[in-house]
Amino acid sequence: MGDRWGTGRLEAFSDGVFAIAITLLVLEIGVPARDFDNLWKGIADQWPSYLGYATSFLTVGALWLAHHGIFRRLSSADGVVMRLNLLLLMLVSFLPFPTKLVAEAIDLTSAERAAVIFYGGVLLAISSVIGALWRHVAGHRELLHPDVTDEEVSALTRQTAPSPGFYIVVVLLAFLAPKVAAFGYLVIPLVGVFRIGGDHSAKRA
Amino acid sequence: MGDRWGTGRLEAFSDGVFAIAITLLVLEIGVPARDFDNLWKGIADQWPSYLGYATSFLTVGALWLAHHGIFRRLSSADGVVMRLNLLLLMLVSFLPFPTKLVAEAIDLTSAERAAVIFYGGVLLAISSVIGALWRHVAGHRELLHPDVTDEEVSALTRQTAPSPGFYIVVVLLAFLAPKVAAFGYLVIPLVGVFRIGGDHSAKRA
Amino acid sequence: MGDRWGTGRLEAFSDGVFAIAITLLVLEIGVPARDFDNLWKGIADQWPSYLGYATSFLTVGALWLAHHGIFRRLSSADGVVMRLNLLLLMLVSFLPFPTKLVAEAIDLTSAERAAVIFYGGVLLAISSVIGALWRHVAGHRELLHPDVTDEEVSALTRQTAPSPGFYIVVVLLAFLAPKVAAFGYLVIPLVGVFRIGGDHSAKRA
Amino acid sequence: MGDRWGTGRLEAFSDGVFAIAITLLVLEIGVPARDFDNLWKGIADQWPSYLGYATSFLTVGALWLAHHGIFRRLSSADGVVMRLNLLLLMLVSFLPFPTKLVAEAIDLTSAERAAVIFYGGVLLAISSVIGALWRHVAGHRELLHPDVTDEEVSALTRQTAPSPGFYIVVVLLAFLAPKVAAFGYLVIPLVGVFRIGGDHSAKRA
Repeated sequence: MGDRWGTGRLEAFSDGVFAIAITLLVLEIGVPARDFDNLWKGIADQWPSYLGYATSFLTVGALWLAHHGIFRRLSSADGVVMRLNLLLLMLVSFLPFPTKLVAEAIDLTSAERAAVIFYGGVLLAISSVIGALWRHVAGHRELLHPDVTDEEVSALTRQTAPSPGFYIVVVLLAFLAPKVAAFGYLVIPLVGVFRIGGDHSAKRA
Repeated sequence: MGDRWGTGRLEAFSDGVFAIAITLLVLEIGVPARDFDNLWKGIADQWPSYLGYATSFLTVGALWLAHHGIFRRLSSADGVVMRLNLLLLMLVSFLPFPTKLVAEAIDLTSAERAAVIFYGGVLLAISSVIGALWRHVAGHRELLHPDVTDEEVSALTRQTAPSPGFYIVVVLLAFLAPKVAAFGYLVIPLVGVFRIGGDHSAKRA
Repeated sequence: MGDRWGTGRLEAFSDGVFAIAITLLVLEIGVPARDFDNLWKGIADQWPSYLGYATSFLTVGALWLAHHGIFRRLSSADGVVMRLNLLLLMLVSFLPFPTKLVAEAIDLTSAERAAVIFYGGVLLAISSVIGALWRHVAGHRELLHPDVTDEEVSALTRQTAPSPGFYIVVVLLAFLAPKVAAFGYLVIPLVGVFRIGGDHSAKRA
Repeated sequence: MGDRWGTGRLEAFSDGVFAIAITLLVLEIGVPARDFDNLWKGIADQWPSYLGYATSFLTVGALWLAHHGIFRRLSSADGVVMRLNLLLLMLVSFLPFPTKLVAEAIDLTSAERAAVIFYGGVLLAISSVIGALWRHVAGHRELLHPDVTDEEVSALTRQTAPSPGFYIVVVLLAFLAPKVAAFGYLVIPLVGVFRIGGDHSAKRA
């Protein structure tokens, strides 16, 4: 039989997990009852939750763009792609937990550093797995549609390769200045999301 | 390679986020154990939760209709569309938080006004982003399918342009009469949902 | 432009809401810490939660089958279909709240009756709206694919019409015997799910 | 009318439920406030939650692979397939509850054994239902696409048949050594996920 479903259902399933992980992040945000006397201040005091929300949301958003860029060029998925994709989804679904930890631990001297490093470790793992997934595909050109050009392959390699390096730098920074690192995690996907404008492949997305 | 997936996966991902944000709203609703002695009254006392639920549900529903109206006319998405859509999803996923705040703060003199204004600010931001997204597309006709008529473009502009104005009026009203404004937020998407019957494009949706 | 997306995105969005509402039901189930000393008994004591879970799950499952039966015969959706579908989704997303109420109130003399009647009211509303949706479509044959036969229209009418009647009977029963009615709500979708085997249209689903 | 939607919407609905059940698992994970003084230890102490998360995630992941393997070979679904699939989804959505129980009960002498056996019972039920679903399809070849070969049918039978046996063994082990059994539940889907690499049908997935 033909592979009528091709990678379609794999993408649909991944999109479902991405969309849900991104949306569950809001459930952790709330203003404690005692802060309702001065609600504007109570809303403002939740800034670590907003920072965590925006960071994890944009991380998954940037990841979704890279994932989409890879999968729409795939003609079929082998066992390695299936397994790396499953590992990727497992890490993305896990993200709400370290996000919540950072929001809870910021400004607690004893816990802030550990929470920010742990969060960075999960972000580093996510960017490493999507990088490994692409490197596997780029090394097995028979998995790609025949009309994918070398130029497109190089562009995607340039897009996915450097992220783990950035995360390692920011995680190291977290040992010295956890709060600065927490904002650093936000900058990485922001750059990723803004770079897509100049990428000619975005025209096709 | 061709853009076989076109805007399909972008729509599917957006639909996922819309559907989940809409469905999570119910998790905040509950009757406290102490109200089980007179459960009918306990159920009735939760009316601010029902108001928030209906308002946010219909807001996302009306937004989904507008989003669907825009994206099924798109032949491709550029970087600006991708970024504005990501910002839109980020605001929609955030909606359960201010919705919960309004439900909790109504009838608390000190907090009611702040909660209703904050909620209105998020609703205003959502309607501004979908408006900006459509204006960008309308100004870049090469993003639209070639058979989209000028009449359709004008109709969608008429549909998306006035909403931010309505929200500004209701947010200003919230400074004087927060409870009236809370009902005002419900009326805006209700009108949007009822208008679609008279729109010839709905025949095609 | 053609209606390339037809009713596809409407169905995908509805499926998303159905799938999420069905899945969130489990979040309310848990064994209190004090019951861990005798966990088998603690697990058994949660039977009202399992009853509520199974009832709401099968209700949404049977609804999904009817919804699928209607929408795959639609060639386009008018404003009334869009609005009734939005109302249907709003009621389905709301279902976890009365489900939780029933699970909490069973065996509480004062609250049991109210919770079971309230739950039945929401189930009655859901079955009425899907019935109204089908009657509207059956009365506007231009919304249906041209090859839908009169026989198929009659079969769907027979399938969707009687449910509201059953729910009215069980809600009336709830005034006398709430616990019996709670099991009655489970029987209605069970019958619906088992009837599909004899329906020749299931072959096509 | 033609069955244009075929089994597509059935798969999309199932994928939605799988994706959500998998993603909700993370909501149960958290570090209690008292453990923030030594957060690294607090994070490490949550290992039963991570074990439960990984086990349930991989179980659903392996199930999704088998489900995908079955449904992309189906040309149509009869009433039995619809009902078994609904039962399967009901069990999968239920999984977060026993997963949470295991994470809470590990190291509690009185509750550990009961929680691990109950969890295993649900896993056994899931693997039995997907096995029954495939056996029904394999016995009704008219439900399959005409180009599905006998070899493919045998391969899927070999893939789905032995799992219930493995689960029975591990559940029996749970009576003697609950903690060892809890890790055993993780090994079964891991083997399933790693086996797909050698399966020629994975090339097509």
